Amino acid sequence: MYRYKHLVQFYETDLMGIVHHSNYLRFFEEARVGYAHEIGIIDYQKPESAAYFAVLETQVRHLLPAKFGDSLEILVQAKIERVRLIFEYKLYRGGELLSESRTQHVSLDKELKLIRPPENIKLMMEKAPWIETWLLNL
Amino acid sequence: MYRYKHLVQFYETDLMGIVHHSNYLRFFEEARVGYAHEIGIIDYQKPESAAYFAVLETQVRHLLPAKFGDSLEILVQAKIERVRLIFEYKLYRGGELLSESRTQHVSLDKELKLIRPPENIKLMMEKAPWIETWLLNL
Amino acid sequence: MYRYKHLVQFYETDLMGIVHHSNYLRFFEEARVGYAHEIGIIDYQKPESAAYFAVLETQVRHLLPAKFGDSLEILVQAKIERVRLIFEYKLYRGGELLSESRTQHVSLDKELKLIRPPENIKLMMEKAPWIETWLLNL
Amino acid sequence: MYRYKHLVQFYETDLMGIVHHSNYLRFFEEARVGYAHEIGIIDYQKPESAAYFAVLETQVRHLLPAKFGDSLEILVQAKIERVRLIFEYKLYRGGELLSESRTQHVSLDKELKLIRPPENIKLMMEKAPWIETWLLNL
Repeated sequence: MYRYKHLVQFYETDLMGIVHHSNYLRFFEEARVGYAHEIGIIDYQKPESAAYFAVLETQVRHLLPAKFGDSLEILVQAKIERVRLIFEYKLYRGGELLSESRTQHVSLDKELKLIRPPENIKLMMEKAPWIETWLLNL
Repeated sequence: MYRYKHLVQFYETDLMGIVHHSNYLRFFEEARVGYAHEIGIIDYQKPESAAYFAVLETQVRHLLPAKFGDSLEILVQAKIERVRLIFEYKLYRGGELLSESRTQHVSLDKELKLIRPPENIKLMMEKAPWIETWLLNL
Repeated sequence: MYRYKHLVQFYETDLMGIVHHSNYLRFFEEARVGYAHEIGIIDYQKPESAAYFAVLETQVRHLLPAKFGDSLEILVQAKIERVRLIFEYKLYRGGELLSESRTQHVSLDKELKLIRPPENIKLMMEKAPWIETWLLNL
Repeated sequence: MYRYKHLVQFYETDLMGIVHHSNYLRFFEEARVGYAHEIGIIDYQKPESAAYFAVLETQVRHLLPAKFGDSLEILVQAKIERVRLIFEYKLYRGGELLSESRTQHVSLDKELKLIRPPENIKLMMEKAPWIETWLLNL
């Protein structure tokens, strides 16, 4: 399973002394892009390929807060359901599960019109490993 | 129903030319804090009161993208279910519904331990108007 | 002189309990865009017009920290020096000066190549009021 | 000389298709904290130690824009001048210099009152290598 690392930065904290909740969507995006890059379905040189992963829906469940300097590890799994690209994430600090998330995506063209996911994305997403009921809290 | 206005800033866009999805959680926070301030359950002078609204879970559904310069309007409703403070949001541009969201919160003390919501928050949240099935897409 | 208002949001704070310094560049951008919009040299419907104000250099001096819930007021002045668009800012909370800033900009085309500022921008920037030595700390 | 790496994320871009300028202050903070951590003058377990590096002034000069997926490398140098902690940065993509920056800091206590930098910070900052006129554009 794909693993992504993120070191919590000072600017990601808020006055409660913990990571602001909006940043988790950024961490999950980092992990999703890293995964998509690893399996060859996103190309940094063609940033418009990001539109193939336009965000339709996000869900995040927080169990424990992350803090400045924490070494986070995010595990990702992905599947495709017709035109929907679905990613799930578990975010850990050491052995502790801090949060879980699911994000759903659709492909858009340059005019932001809905299209079918490109064939190579469809193929790779179908091959990607997926465990039902992997998330425990969402 | 409480209404909050947000003008989309340049720095809230991404290379797809639309508002980055992580910013919606920030817009909903703006609206939630505005509402909590209006009904007197958050005090800007006591920022630690923010800990009474620690984020447990977020869900956002995107229907249409917001863009630079858009005048957004966010409607908010809130209720309390035992220790959970639940907020729902509809985000409009003119008459168009762009996204819907639900966020769930719990109260923490200064050491980030779970506590019961303070009595004044409980009272005001019980009195707040709430429409079941107000959200259409979540 | 143009005045812009910004209410400090919770997500703009960091674990020191004050506004994170990177956000001041965002506040100054809000004020700059607001000003450019008011004098008719930026068009929200043509976001590519933002490229006429590409950032070349920024300077910010902090005197006092802003906090959650603060009502900030930003004053802006602007001038043009050949191809450079120069903006200066004073950020106040009530009567207190919290910070000062100067940002310098150049115009780019869609391929991010340097161009001369469009004629309407040049004209309006030449007419804009400007006080030398307005900033006291930069 | 200390080197810090940053991979440009999707959420760091704006509608011009390049990294938003406010994010450079975040990249330089990452590099500064990384450096301070390496020489032992910041402790992730004591986040209040961040207050010893409160931001007094920032300057950034942009030469070329960074883009989504870019592998950035930031070089840092530091010195102390009485109560001021001064850091300088060069940000590269491959062999290309994209931007330069200087940030100045002072130490604050928990009530945000100015104090002298703690002795260990003073000692390490005095020992840190420093090249005058290292920056070419600021």
